[in-house]
Amino acid sequence: MFIELDLQSETPIYTQLVDQIVEGIACGALQPGEQLPPIRSLAEDLGINLHTVNKAYNLLKQEGLLQVHRKTGVIVQPGEMPGVTEAFEEKLRRQLRSLAAAAAVRGMAEEVFAQESRSVYRDIITNRGGE
Amino acid sequence: MFIELDLQSETPIYTQLVDQIVEGIACGALQPGEQLPPIRSLAEDLGINLHTVNKAYNLLKQEGLLQVHRKTGVIVQPGEMPGVTEAFEEKLRRQLRSLAAAAAVRGMAEEVFAQESRSVYRDIITNRGGE
Repeated sequence: MFIELDLQSETPIYTQLVDQIVEGIACGALQPGEQLPPIRSLAEDLGINLHTVNKAYNLLKQEGLLQVHRKTGVIVQPGEMPGVTEAFEEKLRRQLRSLAAAAAVRGMAEEVFAQESRSVYRDIITNRGGE
Repeated sequence: MFIELDLQSETPIYTQLVDQIVEGIACGALQPGEQLPPIRSLAEDLGINLHTVNKAYNLLKQEGLLQVHRKTGVIVQPGEMPGVTEAFEEKLRRQLRSLAAAAAVRGMAEEVFAQESRSVYRDIITNRGGE
């Protein structure tokens, strides 16, 4: 699994980790049932705290994207992925709202904002099956 | 200025404050040159820490959306708003990417994601000049 962290970023490390795992699943780089590195070894590889990896894994477990087994370790959800729940939609809209407001204030037009959203989504998906 | 905070939210208070001020500017509820409450009184009104308000105001000042004057206090940028810089576009795309990946994993189609983005943007803008 290829993870790239920006330790200078204002985005918390665990959030970057969550984002990259989710993106990996979305683009197919991480397959259902695929094993993720154990907490300790991922923390060592990335030079970050155990708790940071643990926090990211736990969040993804709570969201139903990962499963954590005592024996087999951490794997990508092998069964059905969580769908678009009402809670997810609400959170998504709240976060999009924040981005849309920032874009609108800077004079980015609705059409451009929608187009950016579309192109970013497409960009992730077209990496599916890629290297 | 109407600010509503969710103290139970996982979103930090200062971020919520930043978001709502930006949205206020985007929808026209906050006009260029308009005075914002002094740090101390806003903190008291909202029952939050001085430093939290200070952090939000400072961030918005750095982004060029607010001006902070010794004498006249905090006002909405009366001159030209910052435009869509390369740095802004990069940050926007990174944040959209995180949302798009989460949506894609849950099976939300590209079209639906783009439509959500558009509708959220429109929603903010159509509040312009509203109550």
